[in-house]
Amino acid sequence: MLIGFIILGGEAILSYKALPLSKEVKKLIHLILHAIASVLGAVGIYAAFKFHNESGIANLYSLHSWVGLGTICLYGIQWIFGFVTFYFPGAALTLRRDALPWHVLFGLFVYILAVATAELGFLEKLTFLQSSGLAKYGTEAFLVNFTALVVILLGASVVISAVAPAKVESPVGYSPIERE
Amino acid sequence: MLIGFIILGGEAILSYKALPLSKEVKKLIHLILHAIASVLGAVGIYAAFKFHNESGIANLYSLHSWVGLGTICLYGIQWIFGFVTFYFPGAALTLRRDALPWHVLFGLFVYILAVATAELGFLEKLTFLQSSGLAKYGTEAFLVNFTALVVILLGASVVISAVAPAKVESPVGYSPIERE
Repeated sequence: MLIGFIILGGEAILSYKALPLSKEVKKLIHLILHAIASVLGAVGIYAAFKFHNESGIANLYSLHSWVGLGTICLYGIQWIFGFVTFYFPGAALTLRRDALPWHVLFGLFVYILAVATAELGFLEKLTFLQSSGLAKYGTEAFLVNFTALVVILLGASVVISAVAPAKVESPVGYSPIERE
Repeated sequence: MLIGFIILGGEAILSYKALPLSKEVKKLIHLILHAIASVLGAVGIYAAFKFHNESGIANLYSLHSWVGLGTICLYGIQWIFGFVTFYFPGAALTLRRDALPWHVLFGLFVYILAVATAELGFLEKLTFLQSSGLAKYGTEAFLVNFTALVVILLGASVVISAVAPAKVESPVGYSPIERE
């Protein structure tokens, strides 16, 4: 679920902005990457329920599961809305123009929720391991916590890249290659 | 810490935008509310260490504490930066204009981190209670989880209000009171 929603989802967000391709191709890459992320997320949920059921652990009681399920539902709604509005059949030009800022805002909200869910997951799993005897300041604990910090930094980079202006003015004084 | 960083911090963010007062007064309210939030946060940290030390619980091993300490440090840096740049002594006009979007972006990042820390705190505390016998689907568990969801919705409202355009064009067809 980390690979799906955080890494592929982040790549999907950035791909639309950063790739030097035509708008149509970028749109296709954007929606395919998000679709793969959703499928991986669905597999992850299936695996979580299967593991819980086979180990006799209760389902859907923790904040991680609540926020996570909400995130995945919103992710799916956002994907369908984006597909129908911007890809096929595609809405009228004025509606697309009005809908785009909301698509970006809601998309970033869902992405931040996904990062928050991942953080909750790191904390929950590590707390379970520590309550069954894992050292609180041990190597494993540090590995999990530092991974969680890296995920926050990755998420912040994706959001900042997404909201930053697409083109920075080239410096006036020195510019080795003239950009258009 | 919830009252400080999430509620007062959110009020501080919104006050600058929403109050119908002069820029100087809004700025003062903005920085005083953030200062109160920081002081409440510092009291919260002191209480957490005191409680841990007196109960013989280890300090600073969990993701909640790591992300939380980072958030508070960034909150303080952001406050000092904002005070020096925009209030006293105040930077040059061009620097203030260039710094403002970064102040907003960094401020929202820190606010989102504070909300994420609160979520981690809800999950961690409830997990401890549940591992010492609290019912997984009991009233207390639902109370904590729903409070956590309300905090997410509050945080989202604050961020959306902060990034939304300050003035919406009044409708052309029907407008009971003419706005300037």
